[in-house]
Amino acid sequence: MLQELSSNITKQNLGYSFSSFKDNFKFGKLNHVAIVVPDLQKSAKLHKEVFGAECSGEIEIPEHGVKTVFAKYENTKVELLHPLGEKSPIDKFLKQNPLGKVHHLCYEVEDLAEAIVHVKRMGVRTLGKKPKIGAHGKPVMFLHPKDCDGVLIEMEQK
Amino acid sequence: MLQELSSNITKQNLGYSFSSFKDNFKFGKLNHVAIVVPDLQKSAKLHKEVFGAECSGEIEIPEHGVKTVFAKYENTKVELLHPLGEKSPIDKFLKQNPLGKVHHLCYEVEDLAEAIVHVKRMGVRTLGKKPKIGAHGKPVMFLHPKDCDGVLIEMEQK
Repeated sequence: MLQELSSNITKQNLGYSFSSFKDNFKFGKLNHVAIVVPDLQKSAKLHKEVFGAECSGEIEIPEHGVKTVFAKYENTKVELLHPLGEKSPIDKFLKQNPLGKVHHLCYEVEDLAEAIVHVKRMGVRTLGKKPKIGAHGKPVMFLHPKDCDGVLIEMEQK
Repeated sequence: MLQELSSNITKQNLGYSFSSFKDNFKFGKLNHVAIVVPDLQKSAKLHKEVFGAECSGEIEIPEHGVKTVFAKYENTKVELLHPLGEKSPIDKFLKQNPLGKVHHLCYEVEDLAEAIVHVKRMGVRTLGKKPKIGAHGKPVMFLHPKDCDGVLIEMEQK
């Protein structure tokens, strides 16, 4: 069904201002859905005891200004995030969404440098010019939510 | 690492008011992340041509008041949603989030009736009293975002 219907889209001129179409590039797995939460331990308990996920303990990552718990599901993970320290990059987000909210989606890519060139060529802006080492020790690059349906997208080197 | 750290959480009294803990219940796969978008065709092109997902064509589901495109990734899907008709249930959401925004997360469950009993017993409210047939023909039940870190969760019969 997906295969059959997708041909409709290919054939249509959808008017999106992409300068080219690199045929073989694609995101890999959805590595995780990140959710900023007001109470990390309460959220860990929700995912562990209500949803049945395998949860990590609480991990503090001072250099990124976050505390995190990973909840592992059958095919992907949920990353629970809470601000750590005075200048946490997610502090404002939590204040704006005091109940919690999905913060970003993280996809794995085979080659981050190639992925950055590709998305930029297709008209999607990155946040920052160069990849950074993400909260889990791998190079990452975020894409501008305004170019991605209001959703913050993280690309992570596989 | 996950296995090792999870024992810390189990051992702690985290103060969450669950009345019991059904040891063997768990969510299955994250079936999809649903995103409400302002322009369905533009979003389909983003997921297909920039992110490399296999995309369905546009599917109208008048009885649910939505138009949808599914973007298939390696381990899960993204469901792009746009209002259809005068009284779409996602119309207000799009007005509040005109750029788009993650709308809900959908997890598969082996037995929806059992899942509903389980989550209620654990203190998580459902939206509505009985399952409905979801946009894709399967029984579904939504959980109250206020009990799930501000995130709307859909449980779908596998």
